[in-house]
Amino acid sequence: MSHSRFEYVKQYEQHFDLLKNTYIAIRIDGKGFTKFCERHSFKKPNDINQIKLMLIAALNVMKNYSEIFISYGQSDEFSFILKRSTKLYNRRSEKILTNILSTFTSSYVYYWDKIFKNIKLQYPPTFDARIILYPSFQNIKDYLCWRVTDCHINNLYNTTFWALVDKGNLNKEEAHEKLKKTISSEKNDILFNDFGINYNNENIVFKKGTLILRLKNPKFKNFYKFDDSLIKDDDFCKNLIMCEENNIFAVCHEDVFNNNFWDNEKIDFD
Amino acid sequence: MSHSRFEYVKQYEQHFDLLKNTYIAIRIDGKGFTKFCERHSFKKPNDINQIKLMLIAALNVMKNYSEIFISYGQSDEFSFILKRSTKLYNRRSEKILTNILSTFTSSYVYYWDKIFKNIKLQYPPTFDARIILYPSFQNIKDYLCWRVTDCHINNLYNTTFWALVDKGNLNKEEAHEKLKKTISSEKNDILFNDFGINYNNENIVFKKGTLILRLKNPKFKNFYKFDDSLIKDDDFCKNLIMCEENNIFAVCHEDVFNNNFWDNEKIDFD
Amino acid sequence: MSHSRFEYVKQYEQHFDLLKNTYIAIRIDGKGFTKFCERHSFKKPNDINQIKLMLIAALNVMKNYSEIFISYGQSDEFSFILKRSTKLYNRRSEKILTNILSTFTSSYVYYWDKIFKNIKLQYPPTFDARIILYPSFQNIKDYLCWRVTDCHINNLYNTTFWALVDKGNLNKEEAHEKLKKTISSEKNDILFNDFGINYNNENIVFKKGTLILRLKNPKFKNFYKFDDSLIKDDDFCKNLIMCEENNIFAVCHEDVFNNNFWDNEKIDFD
Amino acid sequence: MSHSRFEYVKQYEQHFDLLKNTYIAIRIDGKGFTKFCERHSFKKPNDINQIKLMLIAALNVMKNYSEIFISYGQSDEFSFILKRSTKLYNRRSEKILTNILSTFTSSYVYYWDKIFKNIKLQYPPTFDARIILYPSFQNIKDYLCWRVTDCHINNLYNTTFWALVDKGNLNKEEAHEKLKKTISSEKNDILFNDFGINYNNENIVFKKGTLILRLKNPKFKNFYKFDDSLIKDDDFCKNLIMCEENNIFAVCHEDVFNNNFWDNEKIDFD
Repeated sequence: MSHSRFEYVKQYEQHFDLLKNTYIAIRIDGKGFTKFCERHSFKKPNDINQIKLMLIAALNVMKNYSEIFISYGQSDEFSFILKRSTKLYNRRSEKILTNILSTFTSSYVYYWDKIFKNIKLQYPPTFDARIILYPSFQNIKDYLCWRVTDCHINNLYNTTFWALVDKGNLNKEEAHEKLKKTISSEKNDILFNDFGINYNNENIVFKKGTLILRLKNPKFKNFYKFDDSLIKDDDFCKNLIMCEENNIFAVCHEDVFNNNFWDNEKIDFD
Repeated sequence: MSHSRFEYVKQYEQHFDLLKNTYIAIRIDGKGFTKFCERHSFKKPNDINQIKLMLIAALNVMKNYSEIFISYGQSDEFSFILKRSTKLYNRRSEKILTNILSTFTSSYVYYWDKIFKNIKLQYPPTFDARIILYPSFQNIKDYLCWRVTDCHINNLYNTTFWALVDKGNLNKEEAHEKLKKTISSEKNDILFNDFGINYNNENIVFKKGTLILRLKNPKFKNFYKFDDSLIKDDDFCKNLIMCEENNIFAVCHEDVFNNNFWDNEKIDFD
Repeated sequence: MSHSRFEYVKQYEQHFDLLKNTYIAIRIDGKGFTKFCERHSFKKPNDINQIKLMLIAALNVMKNYSEIFISYGQSDEFSFILKRSTKLYNRRSEKILTNILSTFTSSYVYYWDKIFKNIKLQYPPTFDARIILYPSFQNIKDYLCWRVTDCHINNLYNTTFWALVDKGNLNKEEAHEKLKKTISSEKNDILFNDFGINYNNENIVFKKGTLILRLKNPKFKNFYKFDDSLIKDDDFCKNLIMCEENNIFAVCHEDVFNNNFWDNEKIDFD
Repeated sequence: MSHSRFEYVKQYEQHFDLLKNTYIAIRIDGKGFTKFCERHSFKKPNDINQIKLMLIAALNVMKNYSEIFISYGQSDEFSFILKRSTKLYNRRSEKILTNILSTFTSSYVYYWDKIFKNIKLQYPPTFDARIILYPSFQNIKDYLCWRVTDCHINNLYNTTFWALVDKGNLNKEEAHEKLKKTISSEKNDILFNDFGINYNNENIVFKKGTLILRLKNPKFKNFYKFDDSLIKDDDFCKNLIMCEENNIFAVCHEDVFNNNFWDNEKIDFD
């Protein structure tokens, strides 16, 4: 049996190296999560435990890949941004994409029981992922603003939709029909006038999504340990700082549209 | 807040469609599995439960992606081959790669407790994956022969190595040194003469790895249900046929070097 | 002055190797040739000298790149097909694409004066090029049939269009309007009934385009030398065989739709 | 004859769009120019007519592709840099690469007779080309410095080499042997001590290569017309300004290592 006779097939592998001097963004998305939410009776319009689990999976990714300087999640998606100078896996696209995705997926399933104590995971969930290059830091700021904007638009819609269904006695089709073509201010009005809900008072986690920043010079004192404190604390997401094996993260919901946010040099993004 | 001002960043996504009329192979590999094996006290040189778990994860992938007509696994790797006519995700490379990898990873963690009843999973494992195109069916046969050859070479080495360490009282460095530059027949001789082990009698699962074939016209009668039977049966891997929701799989260890194997038209590979 | 300080920029080059075991097709197209035809008063609907010049440029490409086993041209385009086993430039996409394109362009300008003796080249023409992979030989046959079909459709349209303009006293808009939505048989009828033209009797070079085959075992005796004979002979394109520095080419207009054409093993295409 | 039966082959085309917000560099190189130089008896170590012809071909490229803001040439190579915001051909890689290469090649052959009045072009020359992306303007400055450094190193070597051969009565092997492992200062010494040549006094065109800048606000008055003045003027390359159909170019040899060169905002590079 000759080793070399078949080994030629290895040469069919085609590797693609990501352009140097560009930021690498990876966005992970839940596949078929409408069904997944239903099968696990996730709370509508937002399930805090699902958001916690996504956060913990993302923190585990950031612990394992130190080149990620910021990440952002909302709903069933999470984005990770690598420094533009990163040489991780020699910038081989497949390697970066698949390692980060697999660690995220694995962590999501692994930590499920710790977060959802009374809900059994019914089947293995699937996430897909894409890799996107951004040449300038302005592109990265705009990318995050794009995802936050998307979070806002979806959350305002979903909050109004489920108010109409749960409290307004509309069925789903009627609620969709009523909201079709409404603008933001009209949805705010429905929430306030019909249901006494001031959207501004909704949980900032749902309204803004969650940022995780890798800190270089943390000025904060109040450290939490990964991951018990996260699970116990319902306010986990309000400027939590975690310190774990030389990794210091801030979990926050600050306004990424505000330039001050980017100017205070808390993070090392080059 | 303008939706469109930031949305331009979406246009930076670059999608790559895989060449039509070619077979798509995806090979998934465990990352850092030397450490992972140690932390979970896997049996040396082979742990039957680890192989079962890989098999179950692979079967779950094949259940979910019907375009995969054959897959092959050994050690901490598994390869999946899609039909050359497949239009899965319009052949978008990232989509195919990440969905299959994520389902595999997720299944591996999900089914852990069912297989390893007495060993707790210590941390979320990571797998990476690559995608390779093969234009001809001969390429696919050679690809599988390459992986089976690799399995044989590694397993003969590992079997001899651990015999030297466990029964021969050599330390690891001495065992490596002794095996360096030996050819296959010499390793067979060491096993037989020093330890009374006839390598031919070793478990075929370890010697050949595991094939999963999607059957179109199964002639077999003895169906097992996924996944309880798998777990109970220690001989799970000897031409097991499973039938599950219109999916019929044969798990086998036949000789892929034998052309008869490919000629009997059990599988639909175009 | 440090050599190495700037040399890092070389690492930004990204090379893409074409998948092995696939045919490589390169199609070259004239850019802005409507204007180019007008500026050089090309005959309508076909200019035999333009076709000769394209042929000579293509023959020069085939002389220089022995991995091309067949090429096909019509109008202002020419396609070159490389053997699927070719290792030219290690199958580096940019290298193959740009070398063949540059040789073609260069030859077109170089040989202009020899073909167009009374028409001065007014400005340097431009061609673009694309590279396409085909896994099977059936794909290659279909590719050539596709281009020949395109030639037929365009030539029938153009022949009828210019008959209407030149002999039918219609202006261009009227001719376009009249032909819009006509099918092939209706165009044939217009030609025959209105202008006494039997399309079947038109020059096969215009109707079918031009194939160049690299022969391995030529049975033909009547060799022409590249390139004088080509220029003198108005029937240059009728099964001309050329022999030049170990290169033997057949220029022909056989029916690529006919399987017999492909079965007679005149060419070595693997 | 069915149009659609074969048209499926068009779907095998794979288009690659260049990442947005990055500079696009295209470097064109002569193929087999050692032989080409000999066949056309180019002067050693530099032939001013060859450099003129390369310049004229490059100017014609810049006239036709207004997105190129700077280009640089030396020896048998020329590099073109497109603005990072360019939308030329929707940034389709093949289109940009092949159009620019073909125009350059075509121009080189077309203008040959105007420059080399007494030397007949013996055969069609070939150039290859590559496309490289650079995310930052610093990368572009470093790219040009890299090419200028390369020009300097090669020209100093060639000037010394041909002095040794032409005036020093060494054969080529002896000259190569003598120069092997010499550093720049030693080559300068050989030129000055053995042949009375002060390298600093050599023609700046040979020492530095040629830059072409597209000007937005030209302050210069002394316009030349493309292309007669170029041909007549032996000093064509000293800060020549050309104005042609709204295109204003400066041909110069300024010091690209000097930051002042880049700060005076003569060019629009975004």
